[in-house]
Amino acid sequence: MSSDLDALRCHFENDRFADANGMRLVELRPGFAKTVLTIEDRHLNSIGTVHGGAIFTLADFAFGAAVKAGGKVAPAISMNLSFLKASRSGVLCAEATEISRSRKLSVCSVRVTNDAGELVALLQGTAYIKDEPFPSPSGSKSS
Amino acid sequence: MSSDLDALRCHFENDRFADANGMRLVELRPGFAKTVLTIEDRHLNSIGTVHGGAIFTLADFAFGAAVKAGGKVAPAISMNLSFLKASRSGVLCAEATEISRSRKLSVCSVRVTNDAGELVALLQGTAYIKDEPFPSPSGSKSS
Amino acid sequence: MSSDLDALRCHFENDRFADANGMRLVELRPGFAKTVLTIEDRHLNSIGTVHGGAIFTLADFAFGAAVKAGGKVAPAISMNLSFLKASRSGVLCAEATEISRSRKLSVCSVRVTNDAGELVALLQGTAYIKDEPFPSPSGSKSS
Amino acid sequence: MSSDLDALRCHFENDRFADANGMRLVELRPGFAKTVLTIEDRHLNSIGTVHGGAIFTLADFAFGAAVKAGGKVAPAISMNLSFLKASRSGVLCAEATEISRSRKLSVCSVRVTNDAGELVALLQGTAYIKDEPFPSPSGSKSS
Repeated sequence: MSSDLDALRCHFENDRFADANGMRLVELRPGFAKTVLTIEDRHLNSIGTVHGGAIFTLADFAFGAAVKAGGKVAPAISMNLSFLKASRSGVLCAEATEISRSRKLSVCSVRVTNDAGELVALLQGTAYIKDEPFPSPSGSKSS
Repeated sequence: MSSDLDALRCHFENDRFADANGMRLVELRPGFAKTVLTIEDRHLNSIGTVHGGAIFTLADFAFGAAVKAGGKVAPAISMNLSFLKASRSGVLCAEATEISRSRKLSVCSVRVTNDAGELVALLQGTAYIKDEPFPSPSGSKSS
Repeated sequence: MSSDLDALRCHFENDRFADANGMRLVELRPGFAKTVLTIEDRHLNSIGTVHGGAIFTLADFAFGAAVKAGGKVAPAISMNLSFLKASRSGVLCAEATEISRSRKLSVCSVRVTNDAGELVALLQGTAYIKDEPFPSPSGSKSS
Repeated sequence: MSSDLDALRCHFENDRFADANGMRLVELRPGFAKTVLTIEDRHLNSIGTVHGGAIFTLADFAFGAAVKAGGKVAPAISMNLSFLKASRSGVLCAEATEISRSRKLSVCSVRVTNDAGELVALLQGTAYIKDEPFPSPSGSKSS
């Protein structure tokens, strides 16, 4: 991984919500990112399956990393998530692939799968690419 | 609140992911639910704004409660979230209103707002209504 | 209606796909538009109900008018449509309301209803607002 | 193509809205369908690019065929469309692939491309699978 991507990766380790919920970024290159989550009791909803919010967060984490690995600030503007299969234990993995990137917009598809390789959820998301470098030279992370 | 809704409300307190992330259900009736979150450092992403996953989770928590308050198991199948405004501090509130309910499908609109009443995100979600009472008589919660 | 909105309304009469399919713009102001369609045989799908494409087109037509009535070119970037009720005859009406508008993005909610006032479909759409006046002074319509 | 798929294909030729707008189904098998459209003046919007409604209709036509080729009635319930590139002339093609199919729900991804193979739009749709054979034995098409 190049030093630019190292800096990015380091940056994403500062994603407090993903970190607080046990999610990790394990692969990153421009237009692609992979995140993983080992399911624990705290990720479950009231009926004992993984919470939709946990699945969305894992997918959104991969989405944001894949888009921002292009080197620009790029907030998500619209996300569509289809839930396909309930999960109760094991490891979930989200792989985000940039499908289209113009000067101002990026569209990614994110596949969330379980240990058995089955599709758990499918996210289609759009980000707005700002004309600001990412991460910012001054940095939002003290270190 | 009737005893049925009391039971439901009690049930949702068992939503571990929402609870672990400091989200609370504060209003509930069939077709409507309201959830709140006081923003803390742990809810932020790598650039210091509230994580999209936290916003989705708050909205999804309200969505699920509003639909299930109809008395049936009803998993979300498709969720569309538009992000409108970044937040850094204060309280976020999600209000889910059931727009349409047929025998098998429910569609809800969820508005997420900040302290100033500004719209932070808008979610449109669809749930599939199963022919099973909710919460189940046997219960998924030990008591 | 002011002369600016008159010009806009005139412009939308040049929407060939909407026109070819019998759809009309009947109300227009910044942030709001209403379109109508009298259902004919040609709007039906293979099972005899109004085609999802006809419903989407009617909603999209209202969406585009509501956003562009703000005076800028603004292509749709992401549209989420929930189908709630099948229709076979009568008049359909789509009402687009701008929920949020920043410098670069507009989000609208569009309600499609039937003669009985029942909700047939619900669209949530996002447009990207360009820094170009609309309609363009030179015009894309010969006159 | 088997006689069952021949019957289906014949059925889809009765899609009046797609037919009236010059769209054709050119490939069909369970879980996959391809539709095409030669762009004409009547498919354009007020600024001279292909109308979002025409793109949605082409994608929806492929989506419906791919899902129903599984042999059951299956209305669309939620569709998410991202517009990626404007088109003015040539041929558009929509390819629908079923990503997930359970007993009650089908999720398809539809890619809409232009002559140059560039992605014009991406649709993610969900259908509700009814317990009714498709096409119905009695038929909705007189012949």
